[in-house]
Amino acid sequence: MSSEAFLERLRQTVLADGFAPLLGIEPVRCFEGEAERVITLRDDLRQHHGFAHGAVIGAAADSACAWAAASVAGDVVTASYTLHLVAPATGERLRAFGVVQAGGKRQLTVRADVFSEVGDERSLVATALASIARVQAKS
Amino acid sequence: MSSEAFLERLRQTVLADGFAPLLGIEPVRCFEGEAERVITLRDDLRQHHGFAHGAVIGAAADSACAWAAASVAGDVVTASYTLHLVAPATGERLRAFGVVQAGGKRQLTVRADVFSEVGDERSLVATALASIARVQAKS
Amino acid sequence: MSSEAFLERLRQTVLADGFAPLLGIEPVRCFEGEAERVITLRDDLRQHHGFAHGAVIGAAADSACAWAAASVAGDVVTASYTLHLVAPATGERLRAFGVVQAGGKRQLTVRADVFSEVGDERSLVATALASIARVQAKS
Amino acid sequence: MSSEAFLERLRQTVLADGFAPLLGIEPVRCFEGEAERVITLRDDLRQHHGFAHGAVIGAAADSACAWAAASVAGDVVTASYTLHLVAPATGERLRAFGVVQAGGKRQLTVRADVFSEVGDERSLVATALASIARVQAKS
Repeated sequence: MSSEAFLERLRQTVLADGFAPLLGIEPVRCFEGEAERVITLRDDLRQHHGFAHGAVIGAAADSACAWAAASVAGDVVTASYTLHLVAPATGERLRAFGVVQAGGKRQLTVRADVFSEVGDERSLVATALASIARVQAKS
Repeated sequence: MSSEAFLERLRQTVLADGFAPLLGIEPVRCFEGEAERVITLRDDLRQHHGFAHGAVIGAAADSACAWAAASVAGDVVTASYTLHLVAPATGERLRAFGVVQAGGKRQLTVRADVFSEVGDERSLVATALASIARVQAKS
Repeated sequence: MSSEAFLERLRQTVLADGFAPLLGIEPVRCFEGEAERVITLRDDLRQHHGFAHGAVIGAAADSACAWAAASVAGDVVTASYTLHLVAPATGERLRAFGVVQAGGKRQLTVRADVFSEVGDERSLVATALASIARVQAKS
Repeated sequence: MSSEAFLERLRQTVLADGFAPLLGIEPVRCFEGEAERVITLRDDLRQHHGFAHGAVIGAAADSACAWAAASVAGDVVTASYTLHLVAPATGERLRAFGVVQAGGKRQLTVRADVFSEVGDERSLVATALASIARVQAKS
């Protein structure tokens, strides 16, 4: 499947998912073990200090990891992830990049970096390491 | 501060927070190193298989950890957490319990268990381990 | 298999393992999803401040998790673990307790607490959360 | 301090540390937020399947993270780390690379990749994400 066709399938899956539209997670790219997602930071995605809520950052990271894995492994579910929040996200939007690090028969290890963006400026706000399980184990 | 007064302060903080009302995270209990939070599973908190979205489970776990820490340490922020998703959450609501395991001058280690509930039945869907940082380091 | 027979099998496996004897990890108990291991803190298991080395604490935690999982799942390997070091381990020995939290077809989620002991006193030095994979997936 | 002088200080610290000589962790490089460590895989560093023991891989990863952090932050201790074991380490030696991802006043987030090597061939066996705490918080 081409990169464009895969991304279109991703968009349709995302629209069928109740939670992704609530957060407005937009798929930007998803191909050959990499994925990029953007979330525009509305006020209701912030916590009481005005920064992006940790769960929103976690959703961006998890989503980038899961879709990076899906681009090489098909149907997947997140088994676990570790999220390190390294700076407050004060920007206009979050951009998450996921990259598959290693893949086995049953699960893939994927890392993601999440950036806060204001105009053209970008700064790292979180980094994550995830185990993403194949729904069908590879024989 | 009494348990009731602390919980009331927690409710007010939660209402001032854009994201918690979006998810409907309800504080049930928060006292002396422990916290309990509930999220009713609306359709828009589910993913495309109909289970609670991992990010919603992550939000429940992180919130229970942060508020367990806040009950003994005052103002806090999440530094990192690891979330293991152990079963699909198919229930009507999520209930998360956070318990402080250890506390240092700068941060606390807190664990949380998240359960899916249907009526009176409860089953474990996730477990988490978090580092919650004090906003003011203890001298 | 009885608890005693299982523990004896564990002891024999540990003696066949090059690294466990180097650390002197002693199996104390291993039954029905729980395991207990002890490491006597020789000088060569300490780091340059005189505390137990983080990798020794990690070995105690990982070993307790893996053997707790093995007690219910047979042959296993560690897929991932998160270790939080919460206090320096200044004692005479480490004691690690592993408890299976949840088990699926492919892997188990296990937590462990590691204590430093001096005489009869015990204090928590680390807590861990691990994914332990079954070597043979359960059908 | 020059890269050579820093590495020499590192070697001396390592020799004063009881555990690093037991494992034979050799510092190769440590400068400006990056570190490289090598462990030759003797038989007593393997587990009962003949692969490098997970705790040895963990020690390599943790050590690379801590020394990458030390190269920019001075005296440090590991607060937590997550280790994903992605393939069995069957080689002659382990090589770990640590890179600081982000640094705050109190702690740094560092990632490490650990490779198994046979001759000139290298394959990824583990990846880690660590929080390394400054012994003196930065003002």
